[in-house]
Amino acid sequence: MPFVLDPSLAGDTLFVSALPTCDLLLLNDARYPWAVLVPRVNGVSELHELAPAQSAQVIDEVLQVGRAVGDYAGVEKVNVGALGNIVRQLHIHVVGRSTRDPAWPGPVWGHSPRVPYQSGEDQPLVAHLKLALGHLISGRA
Amino acid sequence: MPFVLDPSLAGDTLFVSALPTCDLLLLNDARYPWAVLVPRVNGVSELHELAPAQSAQVIDEVLQVGRAVGDYAGVEKVNVGALGNIVRQLHIHVVGRSTRDPAWPGPVWGHSPRVPYQSGEDQPLVAHLKLALGHLISGRA
Repeated sequence: MPFVLDPSLAGDTLFVSALPTCDLLLLNDARYPWAVLVPRVNGVSELHELAPAQSAQVIDEVLQVGRAVGDYAGVEKVNVGALGNIVRQLHIHVVGRSTRDPAWPGPVWGHSPRVPYQSGEDQPLVAHLKLALGHLISGRA
Repeated sequence: MPFVLDPSLAGDTLFVSALPTCDLLLLNDARYPWAVLVPRVNGVSELHELAPAQSAQVIDEVLQVGRAVGDYAGVEKVNVGALGNIVRQLHIHVVGRSTRDPAWPGPVWGHSPRVPYQSGEDQPLVAHLKLALGHLISGRA
């Protein structure tokens, strides 16, 4: 059965790229450089439910996205979280935080409604991620 | 230099056991089965700053603790998070969530002050974790 992205996740995000095991999405919130990784596996809601070989690759991608987000302009701390209380499809948040962001030092989850990107406003971050993760993306659409 | 646990983390937690690479702590909040793993490495605040061999072992312990917490009575969802906005020493939260817990479906971080365990009240959870993770603990203090 082909992988199907949860409609709620799809509605809240912009597609960036397909990494080897995860789809790399951008949360459509201009206030934070906020990546979301979704392993292309149906029916899994917990990290520990992944097969060992899958989880190793997923975590490798999470760590590489974490490094890329951490290197983005203005990011002082990276927050990584797999919650899934509302959307059960396994997805991992990788959020670049700054002492000047609206939710600091609390978590971004549940803080306030998204502020969607204006047209083209997401491009610097998307370009940064694609450059930093090029070795994971090359040869893929 | 020997590993030193951040004093703020030490004050908020109860020591459970030393796993091969992480100290396993219990957040001293009786409302949630809430484990905290602290890799015994000084000066690291991001998961992606760990050496690859370290991060693989740390994540393995996180996933095994996640499975153990997920199997605990009443847990319906596991939340995993590495935030560190306030305490910079790398630590990974593994929180058992329930639709009946006070913060549901929001994150536990920043929700409300801890409600410490009464004497002995933490013992069922500690016993469960030690049993579930016995293969990681055996031979250690």
